[in-house]
Amino acid sequence: VTDGTSRVFPPTLAELEAEAEVAASPAAWDYLAHGSGDESTMRENVVAWTRWKLRPQVLRDMGDVRTSTTVLGIDVDAPILIAPTAMHRFVCDDGELATARAAVRANTIYIVSMAATTSLEAVAAEAPDSARWAQMYMLRDRGRTRALAERAGAAGYRAVVASVDGAAVPRRSRLAGGALVPPDTFRFPNLASPDDPHNTNLMAMVSDFDPTVTFDDLALFEEWSGLPVVVKGVMRGDDAARCVDAGAAAIAISNHGGRTLDGVAATADVLPEIADAVAGRAEVYVDGGIRNGVDVLRAVALGAQAVLIGRPVLWGLAVDGADGAVAVLHHLAEELGRAMALCGRDRVDLLTRDLLLGAT
Amino acid sequence: VTDGTSRVFPPTLAELEAEAEVAASPAAWDYLAHGSGDESTMRENVVAWTRWKLRPQVLRDMGDVRTSTTVLGIDVDAPILIAPTAMHRFVCDDGELATARAAVRANTIYIVSMAATTSLEAVAAEAPDSARWAQMYMLRDRGRTRALAERAGAAGYRAVVASVDGAAVPRRSRLAGGALVPPDTFRFPNLASPDDPHNTNLMAMVSDFDPTVTFDDLALFEEWSGLPVVVKGVMRGDDAARCVDAGAAAIAISNHGGRTLDGVAATADVLPEIADAVAGRAEVYVDGGIRNGVDVLRAVALGAQAVLIGRPVLWGLAVDGADGAVAVLHHLAEELGRAMALCGRDRVDLLTRDLLLGAT
Amino acid sequence: VTDGTSRVFPPTLAELEAEAEVAASPAAWDYLAHGSGDESTMRENVVAWTRWKLRPQVLRDMGDVRTSTTVLGIDVDAPILIAPTAMHRFVCDDGELATARAAVRANTIYIVSMAATTSLEAVAAEAPDSARWAQMYMLRDRGRTRALAERAGAAGYRAVVASVDGAAVPRRSRLAGGALVPPDTFRFPNLASPDDPHNTNLMAMVSDFDPTVTFDDLALFEEWSGLPVVVKGVMRGDDAARCVDAGAAAIAISNHGGRTLDGVAATADVLPEIADAVAGRAEVYVDGGIRNGVDVLRAVALGAQAVLIGRPVLWGLAVDGADGAVAVLHHLAEELGRAMALCGRDRVDLLTRDLLLGAT
Amino acid sequence: VTDGTSRVFPPTLAELEAEAEVAASPAAWDYLAHGSGDESTMRENVVAWTRWKLRPQVLRDMGDVRTSTTVLGIDVDAPILIAPTAMHRFVCDDGELATARAAVRANTIYIVSMAATTSLEAVAAEAPDSARWAQMYMLRDRGRTRALAERAGAAGYRAVVASVDGAAVPRRSRLAGGALVPPDTFRFPNLASPDDPHNTNLMAMVSDFDPTVTFDDLALFEEWSGLPVVVKGVMRGDDAARCVDAGAAAIAISNHGGRTLDGVAATADVLPEIADAVAGRAEVYVDGGIRNGVDVLRAVALGAQAVLIGRPVLWGLAVDGADGAVAVLHHLAEELGRAMALCGRDRVDLLTRDLLLGAT
Repeated sequence: VTDGTSRVFPPTLAELEAEAEVAASPAAWDYLAHGSGDESTMRENVVAWTRWKLRPQVLRDMGDVRTSTTVLGIDVDAPILIAPTAMHRFVCDDGELATARAAVRANTIYIVSMAATTSLEAVAAEAPDSARWAQMYMLRDRGRTRALAERAGAAGYRAVVASVDGAAVPRRSRLAGGALVPPDTFRFPNLASPDDPHNTNLMAMVSDFDPTVTFDDLALFEEWSGLPVVVKGVMRGDDAARCVDAGAAAIAISNHGGRTLDGVAATADVLPEIADAVAGRAEVYVDGGIRNGVDVLRAVALGAQAVLIGRPVLWGLAVDGADGAVAVLHHLAEELGRAMALCGRDRVDLLTRDLLLGAT
Repeated sequence: VTDGTSRVFPPTLAELEAEAEVAASPAAWDYLAHGSGDESTMRENVVAWTRWKLRPQVLRDMGDVRTSTTVLGIDVDAPILIAPTAMHRFVCDDGELATARAAVRANTIYIVSMAATTSLEAVAAEAPDSARWAQMYMLRDRGRTRALAERAGAAGYRAVVASVDGAAVPRRSRLAGGALVPPDTFRFPNLASPDDPHNTNLMAMVSDFDPTVTFDDLALFEEWSGLPVVVKGVMRGDDAARCVDAGAAAIAISNHGGRTLDGVAATADVLPEIADAVAGRAEVYVDGGIRNGVDVLRAVALGAQAVLIGRPVLWGLAVDGADGAVAVLHHLAEELGRAMALCGRDRVDLLTRDLLLGAT
Repeated sequence: VTDGTSRVFPPTLAELEAEAEVAASPAAWDYLAHGSGDESTMRENVVAWTRWKLRPQVLRDMGDVRTSTTVLGIDVDAPILIAPTAMHRFVCDDGELATARAAVRANTIYIVSMAATTSLEAVAAEAPDSARWAQMYMLRDRGRTRALAERAGAAGYRAVVASVDGAAVPRRSRLAGGALVPPDTFRFPNLASPDDPHNTNLMAMVSDFDPTVTFDDLALFEEWSGLPVVVKGVMRGDDAARCVDAGAAAIAISNHGGRTLDGVAATADVLPEIADAVAGRAEVYVDGGIRNGVDVLRAVALGAQAVLIGRPVLWGLAVDGADGAVAVLHHLAEELGRAMALCGRDRVDLLTRDLLLGAT
Repeated sequence: VTDGTSRVFPPTLAELEAEAEVAASPAAWDYLAHGSGDESTMRENVVAWTRWKLRPQVLRDMGDVRTSTTVLGIDVDAPILIAPTAMHRFVCDDGELATARAAVRANTIYIVSMAATTSLEAVAAEAPDSARWAQMYMLRDRGRTRALAERAGAAGYRAVVASVDGAAVPRRSRLAGGALVPPDTFRFPNLASPDDPHNTNLMAMVSDFDPTVTFDDLALFEEWSGLPVVVKGVMRGDDAARCVDAGAAAIAISNHGGRTLDGVAATADVLPEIADAVAGRAEVYVDGGIRNGVDVLRAVALGAQAVLIGRPVLWGLAVDGADGAVAVLHHLAEELGRAMALCGRDRVDLLTRDLLLGAT
């Protein structure tokens, strides 16, 4: 995969992952690669997609295959967004600025993390014309989240992604003592408390998440930001329906890449139930274990409007900065397009469950 | 995991197990670690829990998560009891006295084994204010069991745990000759025959178990001790219902940690059937293969009032005596609380089957 | 396991197998251990039993557990017969005479193979008071089979076991060239052609099997021998029913230990169907992959009147002659008795399908 | 396996594969052995057949077992055809001429590939009396396909095999850069453009495949060639039915040996659905992962009229030229005959689904 980038990329993301492990510092790799507990959910996320076997169609006119689609009304080149992940400076000197440039080049949406090492405003300045969303948790001091939501609105972000899987601080076995202290040169301009802006103890900051947030609070994110709200971290149909009832514009199915609670179902295994429960009243996205274009096709066929890519984007950043992230996004989109052609579906919205063995 | 103990504990019980193997004598480890036959039931006990995948709920107020519950009317900090296991002196100089202290500190119930190397009375004296239960088999000389049951009542125990899986002497492949002769310094003040009080041949003593005990005999335990009776070793719904009909206050599902008959179903696989058969007329407990707080959550969600922890408590004792056992119990409770919060259930009695994929 | 034999036996048959591999000549071991094709059926035979998980019952009076039963009206100490296998001289100097002595000592039935290296008459002379059955194929020269059947009747055999899985010569990958030439000192007094009595090319003799034998021919075995006929090699319920209609006294389910056609179902997987189809009109036996007493219990619970043990008896013969074979049979019976007690069933005819998870 | 060939062949195709890897050049082996993506479909093709367990019948007269059958009215010795595969010169100096001679000797049909390194006419001249089919894709320049179809008709081919899985150029991870450039001494007289007849860039030529071909175009192949049309690459029942409606004489189920899109279902897993959808209105063939005669029996029992053998024929060519290919075909036919006899079915058209556990 060259895609106009400065390096020749390996042919599969698994090989890119191996390169990234070499390129990243051990501390960054531990942080990036680990999951919670025995990491069974992290592994199962990947495997669950592969259980859906394809039933390709043939003899349809595939002269004009397009992966482009819209996400909350925003045009994107492919249903492949950049998931919110923390601390891009951990793998790339330019940090989130590199990611912002990659999103522009791949014409997709970058969901900036509350735990970014770059401010929402700086990301916006780097890529003013791109579509960006701002991810955030409700903090115990709700004023801090309000301030961040207001900043997102003011900085031209197009949606707030409200994460709802923060009711307890996860324990991550692979990290020393189950905790993480990033380099003290890092700053967290979206997350750090105004009282302690130079605090770099991410896990301590994580303990600021408000465990009392409920469906009734979802409207606050919209009220504060003036933006549509995507609820991230939903794993059940009944919860998804209640989020929609509470005004959510979209549901992002996620088990946090297997990083919060080991033993949770794979996202691929709950996607059909959630898509059925939402029943078109909102958009549905999914992340977790998506490693090639066929996985993207599977997700969309099962009911997702788009997928969110977490670790692979970081692998690209680690290996080659913005160019690397672009290569990953182009690689996935190219594979998706090829898979669509070989399945006889030339538009994303024609990807339906009958393409998967046993899915109907 | 420090939990106020004198050592830093490893982050998972699997790592603690590895440390315990180093700390324990080879003979003790062989005794503790082995199962019967090919040890398939022992392994399956662990794996079966992991097949139940979680369906967490979000956006519930998790500001006050409590793992506390009651077991036969006794308040405990978590639904995590200490299973009856033999010969704690094998892994810890203080033997069962250390375990008794750990139970007090963790505010849970210690089920003292008939094959303990400490008398019921000495355990009671060490932890007079704690809740203790006394486990026993019916012996061929029923007068001996009667005497033990009477001692349990007199020593302030709160229940008798009648084990009913002793109809034959198991063969345990990993032990030399399939048998076990503990150090001859050991004494078995609850099990040894009054005619041969210094006998340390545990397997010979095991052959004293009465294979003719039936449902009609369950009432004897209550009659002799004046205590409620927990029937331990039940693996079927029909048996559980008959135990309740015969007056049992609780059913403890157990295949003896895979140590009696290899090929028996995993306890996780029969728990739903038994909980349904008992239908709330008695409490249900389960042991076997529980290795983290999510397993505890799974067991309670499937219908258990509490779980019994066997080998992991012994690992803690082996590595750090009473402090180690406390750390194990705290670790599990802490994981349970975190899992409850991340599943959106703040009370133990709100853990229901809908939390598990495919369980309803 | 000592059982009064001259050696201490290993605790599991898997360990005995390892010893037998050392004790046997490479040629003998290749012959004994191999299966056809990729040996998937051979392996699956063993695994399929283990999929049936036990649901033990408790609190039944197990004061008098008996493994004894009857097979075609013959009293045996356990439902564990000696399967017909070829060339016992390959693993033991005394050959089938040792096996005959073992059968007497274990009080079970020895099914002498048509490919034995000892004559039916010599076996009978060695163990005159024991119950013996004679196994045979219909040969293209039916007069030769008739002569053998008549000899079985005259030598006091109690049944003819007619093997019906010989419609083609199997190819066994592990043997050089797919064929086998035993030592030329071997003789096959039950199988060799009268025209070529010193022929030791077993595979050439196998090509003498008559591929045209049908249900209508089953009556010939009874007519020639005056004995009840057991049909061996049945793998379907419809076939079993037709055998019974044609006068068979019993059905022996077998895929020849995975040695004829790789890819065939495991015997454990077809036993329920066949037991249901026979519906008590004849006895049902099963062989293949039975490696411990729990497997015997599983087979009987699923509908078998008895099991036939092939390779493990040969392992015992290889390691310690008749004593070794006795030890294997005693070991299995002892394990069966222990499993029965721990399942709450004190008689063989009380072993029913409810003991197995998912079998009813 | 000797079969009158010049070498002794190994007893299983797996062993032949290992020999072929030694005999072939690394470039040829990479081309031959690889699949697309993670090669999961390539592996699953093999495994899926083995999940169908056999239920053999016994006591049927197997005195005259015949593997012969007809395919589109052509008599063949066994339902085992030679699949179209590219560049036989890669593994064998004589290239497709050797394959043509093998097909004559095995009395089967050779499907000559559009990507052959030998012209349709030269193959026809080498084996004038044999039955040959010509495989081809619709090219973007349809006139080129028309010319090839006309040549097939003129050269006495008996059917056109229209491949329909070419809507996108596959990416094959194991090949350098995902592409392939064969030796520049190769010529592609059936595929190369008249404008660039010496082009040896196969992947570039592959990009000439017309992605706009639809069901309506199938009639063109028949119109141009005057031959019946076999549609190859179908993986769904609905597609198969539409092909038949559009005039196809036969459906060849194929996922291109796992070389086009990784994640596609195994052919064994879609065969029953497709056979049911076609319902006898056309013939059905299948390729992918067939590695022994029992796999052939399984395919026919599930509804295939014949199987197509790809890689194993190339292994034979690599190891011993035409003799090697003949040995492979004879080996499979011999195994099929043996399997039929041991399943109690003496004619190919008696192979039905009841022979497979769970297939009815």
